[in-house]
Amino acid sequence: MKRREFLTAATLTAGAAIVSGCQRAEEGKSVNVNKGKKVKLKLATSWPAHFPIMGTGVDSFAARCGELSGGSLEIKVYPKNILVPALQVFDATSAAQIDMFHSGVYYWKGKNSAFSIFGGMPLGFTSEEMITWIKYGGGYELWRELYAKFNLYPIIGGTTGPQMGGWFKKEIKSLEDLKGLKMRIPGLGGEVMQRLGVNPVLLPAGEIFTALDRGTIDATEWVGPYLDKMMGFDKAANYYYTGWHEPGSILEITLNKQRWEKLSKEHQAIITAASDEMTSNMLYEFRIRNAEALRDLPKNVEIKTFPPEFFDAAKKALAEVIATESANSADFKRVYESYEKFNRINAPWDAISTKNFLEIRG
Amino acid sequence: MKRREFLTAATLTAGAAIVSGCQRAEEGKSVNVNKGKKVKLKLATSWPAHFPIMGTGVDSFAARCGELSGGSLEIKVYPKNILVPALQVFDATSAAQIDMFHSGVYYWKGKNSAFSIFGGMPLGFTSEEMITWIKYGGGYELWRELYAKFNLYPIIGGTTGPQMGGWFKKEIKSLEDLKGLKMRIPGLGGEVMQRLGVNPVLLPAGEIFTALDRGTIDATEWVGPYLDKMMGFDKAANYYYTGWHEPGSILEITLNKQRWEKLSKEHQAIITAASDEMTSNMLYEFRIRNAEALRDLPKNVEIKTFPPEFFDAAKKALAEVIATESANSADFKRVYESYEKFNRINAPWDAISTKNFLEIRG
Repeated sequence: MKRREFLTAATLTAGAAIVSGCQRAEEGKSVNVNKGKKVKLKLATSWPAHFPIMGTGVDSFAARCGELSGGSLEIKVYPKNILVPALQVFDATSAAQIDMFHSGVYYWKGKNSAFSIFGGMPLGFTSEEMITWIKYGGGYELWRELYAKFNLYPIIGGTTGPQMGGWFKKEIKSLEDLKGLKMRIPGLGGEVMQRLGVNPVLLPAGEIFTALDRGTIDATEWVGPYLDKMMGFDKAANYYYTGWHEPGSILEITLNKQRWEKLSKEHQAIITAASDEMTSNMLYEFRIRNAEALRDLPKNVEIKTFPPEFFDAAKKALAEVIATESANSADFKRVYESYEKFNRINAPWDAISTKNFLEIRG
Repeated sequence: MKRREFLTAATLTAGAAIVSGCQRAEEGKSVNVNKGKKVKLKLATSWPAHFPIMGTGVDSFAARCGELSGGSLEIKVYPKNILVPALQVFDATSAAQIDMFHSGVYYWKGKNSAFSIFGGMPLGFTSEEMITWIKYGGGYELWRELYAKFNLYPIIGGTTGPQMGGWFKKEIKSLEDLKGLKMRIPGLGGEVMQRLGVNPVLLPAGEIFTALDRGTIDATEWVGPYLDKMMGFDKAANYYYTGWHEPGSILEITLNKQRWEKLSKEHQAIITAASDEMTSNMLYEFRIRNAEALRDLPKNVEIKTFPPEFFDAAKKALAEVIATESANSADFKRVYESYEKFNRINAPWDAISTKNFLEIRG
């Protein structure tokens, strides 16, 4: 340890006057070095500054790390495009240009198709099931093994809860009504829709409203009532469909792996506990804000569920997508097998506990 | 600050040699006093030592507080009946005989009937809904106001997730089959059952199996497949009913209020974050352990759901119980109004998101 670092440590923890009056400082046998040594980490996000729930969530996470460490762990949050473009946070952290990032796992499918599974599956696990699989069902081991190849160490860093199916300018009464529709829908959900005849398009967030309003696109999905209302979609489309393709999307706090390993056990524990706190609070906050926003939607909005034939076809299409991805990628196949193994254990219990209870409750 | 305390602080945080060689220590302007000052708290639980999930959860919570604080916060866990009898932890903490406790909120109905609502309601909120109401829907304000009258400061400290309806020696095909049955079932669920003709009995945990096995009682509820199997109920009864009366029971980490207020902001943050982490991990752990235990139940066990007429009658009986409790207690009335206010906002969103999705997923 260099003298300069040690001075900083002592200054932070026991007051400057001790050390300035103390000639034997460097001989000291330090009991709790890492607590005193101030660590500063740069975190880049894929969200605009203070973006509701995702952005404010990571702001709170960073502040919480400061509180929990008595100020010895300082995480500075850089919103998208300040230090790093929104979708380059993965590469920048991998290359140790920044220390860590907060983003959605679904963005990195291009790096390895298996990553899409850690982000959540269409018609798949809810947030609670996703996190149980990742924490207790073998998901973390696989996720960390695969991210290690990019010098990354992932931690669950939030979840959206169930998302909605999206906004449509015309009602979808049959599968026929989907054919040829232009819809902004990314990821595996988009691949399923494509197999049902939809033409999935990608658009930057800032252009979606105008495209929907002018009819350049016929439909878009986003998140749920709270964030969708902020985008103004209720002014551009009347039919709001219930969700199927993102039942429990997972966000991540991911660190450069070498940076993570150099942190003290205490700072590692602080980041992990603060991430868990962010994750659960995000789920609860999405629930209440979505519930309030649903209540406050204008009267032109009709809540609809796709017809049963849509779900039959979507399940078939999803099975095809999974078969194709599994054939193309040994990693995808292996992660999906872990996911399915947990599913076989979890599904009968979820059916008799959560699902059955919600039906009884009415 | 006394010299002795200051020495301890500096020893813990910056190494003993600094202070021993430093005559100006007491003149030091301390930057982070509370981090260094070792705080020891005594926590009593209502569980046996290392009881699965509840007991191991609070063990992990205490260890986590140590890790997060770099050893400056030491919480010693005393299982039930070591320092304090299981159901006297509330009074002992109120009287500052111990600093804090870990228990179930449903135990304190005798102190104030309103407390039962914070523990969870029959046919009511799931764990996720309970926590959202408490954190974001006004529940915490009321809970803390009412606990303050007992010198207590409560924090959510775990949740069981959905519980099962219990074990019956005979199948329940109609309401008639319930009449006169002796069932071990406490709380509001017991009150509802009583109105349906059941004779609810209270038994210490250690006596339930023998009573069920010998037919001294006809039925018992406990928790869910994992803990129920440990009790051996699958060897004493064949009919295992799905849940309705404890869809999201809340556990608590509760501190003596004056003790809480004397803690540093940092130690308060550590206890709060570690409680949140325990709560979510407990929910996930219950999910996977219950799912595994359900899979492993012996073949004599039949999973059953009560007939529809049971739920119609239970809803009516519950409304009567709530009306009676509200008439008898202004606190109960006020807390229930807050609960119902959140329910009116939450229910439509839960119906189109979680419930609808689980039905679609199949």
